[in-house]
Amino acid sequence: METQGETQGIGAGSIGDWAGRSADPEYRAAVVDLLGALAYGELSAFERLAEDAKFAPGLADKAALARMASAEFQHFQLLHDRLAAVGADPDEAMTPFVEPLDGFHRLTAPSDWLEGLVKAYVGDAIATDFYREVAVRLDDDTRDLVLGVMADTGHAQFAVDKVRQAIQENPRVGGRLALWGRRLMGEALSQAQRVVAERDALSNLLVGGAQVQGFDLVEVGKMFNRITEAHTRRMAALGLAS
Amino acid sequence: METQGETQGIGAGSIGDWAGRSADPEYRAAVVDLLGALAYGELSAFERLAEDAKFAPGLADKAALARMASAEFQHFQLLHDRLAAVGADPDEAMTPFVEPLDGFHRLTAPSDWLEGLVKAYVGDAIATDFYREVAVRLDDDTRDLVLGVMADTGHAQFAVDKVRQAIQENPRVGGRLALWGRRLMGEALSQAQRVVAERDALSNLLVGGAQVQGFDLVEVGKMFNRITEAHTRRMAALGLAS
Repeated sequence: METQGETQGIGAGSIGDWAGRSADPEYRAAVVDLLGALAYGELSAFERLAEDAKFAPGLADKAALARMASAEFQHFQLLHDRLAAVGADPDEAMTPFVEPLDGFHRLTAPSDWLEGLVKAYVGDAIATDFYREVAVRLDDDTRDLVLGVMADTGHAQFAVDKVRQAIQENPRVGGRLALWGRRLMGEALSQAQRVVAERDALSNLLVGGAQVQGFDLVEVGKMFNRITEAHTRRMAALGLAS
Repeated sequence: METQGETQGIGAGSIGDWAGRSADPEYRAAVVDLLGALAYGELSAFERLAEDAKFAPGLADKAALARMASAEFQHFQLLHDRLAAVGADPDEAMTPFVEPLDGFHRLTAPSDWLEGLVKAYVGDAIATDFYREVAVRLDDDTRDLVLGVMADTGHAQFAVDKVRQAIQENPRVGGRLALWGRRLMGEALSQAQRVVAERDALSNLLVGGAQVQGFDLVEVGKMFNRITEAHTRRMAALGLAS
């Protein structure tokens, strides 16, 4: 993947720090958008994980989900504090992303424990892929923060273990969960496309840095394809056809 | 209030440390019971606060409730780890308290944001009173832990500010919330009495140290009275008749 740093000669993998880059109002707006989207993503992940804990078949599983929810909240707090530190209003920055994220969660409310686990796993993985895509286009300070909140909250291994065990015990579960995984990815893409269509500065940042003028649907499509391919590989690893 | 330490000559306010006291199987059983009750109390407080966050009128309020829920989870983790460290099975220790606490929450599901806040405030305050009552009867190590998890999670001031403001804007809200506060206290006492009737070792610890044999309903009644009186004072401070 190309890095903006090389083309600008600041050094491999770096496009400079926040102090330097934030003078560009479009870059600044894009980063505030990005941090707002990530912050509300973490807050709503907290809420959903906490709610899905009610499906837990036992106290240890309930505690495990509550632990992940708490980790999401810590991430939210970091993003929130960063928004405040750069002089943005955190609530205002999150607001454009409330409806798309709430919409995603409303349309993908799990009906049982296993659906909740697959959703936690898939959601976490998509978020991580997205963070990775965007990290290379960010100034050093923002990138450090984004990579920090990307740190594993333990979703993945926990969910993989539980889901595999359930499929082993009852192979028919696999068919239902494979369908569920496809639906999750479909709804995620549909909400992401909505965000891309509505948030120009953020979209420009995603497809090639804020200096790219205009809106490149082909580049956005390529990014979504990479994320979908990674999803397909992960579902296979879970023992599910995607 | 008398301390066991004075009567045993170990020093004012101390009945010794865990290593010394846990040799007594009844004391050990009582402390495991207590930590199990507190741990499940924190886990279920986490769940309810996270769920009540859905009533939040705005993002800042939602984040504030999520922050409190996370703090409760950190407390749960400390109690859980302590149970494991003393060789008890945390799940087993919590199990007897699942039904009474879930019952309390089921019977007192808030129907809106203000009822949720009053419940968080009242619930936190009752828990703190209970921790204080019991702390003086504990060995030094267990007491340090209990007083540590008693640390303010920020419920109180946040709830007081929001509820007072709501009553100021619409005095009729006060009548409804006063009724709600009475119902919360009533249900809490009813579930607590159920626990006392079923858990002998814990009850003995509560009413005068594990060495008291037999079950003293009068002492338990006095403790509940002290907690009820404190509740009455707090409701008055909130601008609510109890």
